[in-house]
Amino acid sequence: MHICGKLYKDPEKEVMMEDKNVPNIVVGRLPLYLRTLQLMSQEGRRVTSSQELGERLGISAAQIRKDLSQFGEFGKQGTGYTIDFLTDQLRQILHVKKVWDVAVVGIGDVGHALARYQGFANRGFRIVLLFDNDPHKIGTVVGGYVVQDLTSMVDQIQKVGVLVAMLSVPVDQAQLVTNLLIQAGVRSILNYAPINISVPIGVRVQYIDPVLHLQRMTYYLE
Amino acid sequence: MHICGKLYKDPEKEVMMEDKNVPNIVVGRLPLYLRTLQLMSQEGRRVTSSQELGERLGISAAQIRKDLSQFGEFGKQGTGYTIDFLTDQLRQILHVKKVWDVAVVGIGDVGHALARYQGFANRGFRIVLLFDNDPHKIGTVVGGYVVQDLTSMVDQIQKVGVLVAMLSVPVDQAQLVTNLLIQAGVRSILNYAPINISVPIGVRVQYIDPVLHLQRMTYYLE
Repeated sequence: MHICGKLYKDPEKEVMMEDKNVPNIVVGRLPLYLRTLQLMSQEGRRVTSSQELGERLGISAAQIRKDLSQFGEFGKQGTGYTIDFLTDQLRQILHVKKVWDVAVVGIGDVGHALARYQGFANRGFRIVLLFDNDPHKIGTVVGGYVVQDLTSMVDQIQKVGVLVAMLSVPVDQAQLVTNLLIQAGVRSILNYAPINISVPIGVRVQYIDPVLHLQRMTYYLE
Repeated sequence: MHICGKLYKDPEKEVMMEDKNVPNIVVGRLPLYLRTLQLMSQEGRRVTSSQELGERLGISAAQIRKDLSQFGEFGKQGTGYTIDFLTDQLRQILHVKKVWDVAVVGIGDVGHALARYQGFANRGFRIVLLFDNDPHKIGTVVGGYVVQDLTSMVDQIQKVGVLVAMLSVPVDQAQLVTNLLIQAGVRSILNYAPINISVPIGVRVQYIDPVLHLQRMTYYLE
């Protein structure tokens, strides 16, 4: 919902420049393009077009071309996009050529599902730390990782250098745990608790609440 | 991502009119406002303002006033919004004064978590049907409901009149099951499978894929 810029140092010019101020809504579409390209690659495809991507995604070809043009020239008029090349470029733009370590806090049903989720592989993330405050859960193994005591979380996250966390604690603990995550150095939080959390500038939050998506659809139902 | 209008018949004028053509992005913010108002109400609050809503949500007060003004006059200059009244109005606009029956298809980890999720109560939805094609799952009870055989899904959904479904099947079954859901009359699908699905006009899809949200944040991480 914000238009976000960041400062970076141009190695050629040795000056601080603002990035292209790409709107957040455009950034939000890039992972969709990347996911579709990776699926096409799995299907054995080598080349695609903005038309085909658009049809798969329900987005206009013009919009896709416009979004991608903010980052460079990735295709040629008439020949389309080389899937592997565009995939590689998008992974670089989204900073997922590396694999980010992720902590999951709150190992209830949702945390359990996240710890065992197979969909992170090859997409830039791997879960490495699980935390809960329930003595019955601490020490158990979920998805190959031992659930650790919430009281050790700040130390553990700092030690491993985790910057990305998924929050699946009850609503009344969400802000408290968020504060601890920030204290530990986490800068991106995917929040599954159905409540808005406050974070300082420089920390980003995304929300996953199925009801928000459902209500957005029932608006259009009679 | 689309600006969506729908055609409806004005009972007074007996002509087909477009609705107010509220942009989909505005519709997408209404559930956020509703969720925040419901939390405020639980806190015992009676009145709020666009400023306070904005601070809680990280959205400007002006944006909130503009969004709400598309649907009517809900507050008074200087006195703000009566929380119960605005809650009621938003529930009406989003069609969640009624409770929608929901089917969950695919009772793996995600489907299991959805079936047991406590966050649907008082927000317009209740899960009533669970389906899977695994003989080991069919007949088991999850979240109080018996998992039924996928082969009975179309009949069951039609019988109960379910219009809303959550899809948590493997990627390679997502389109096939979607086609069955549409055949059964479902018009809103919340898709947890990390793949885009094709639906005819008049059917809506929302996607929940944690990686899309994570990648959207790592874009801003060094």
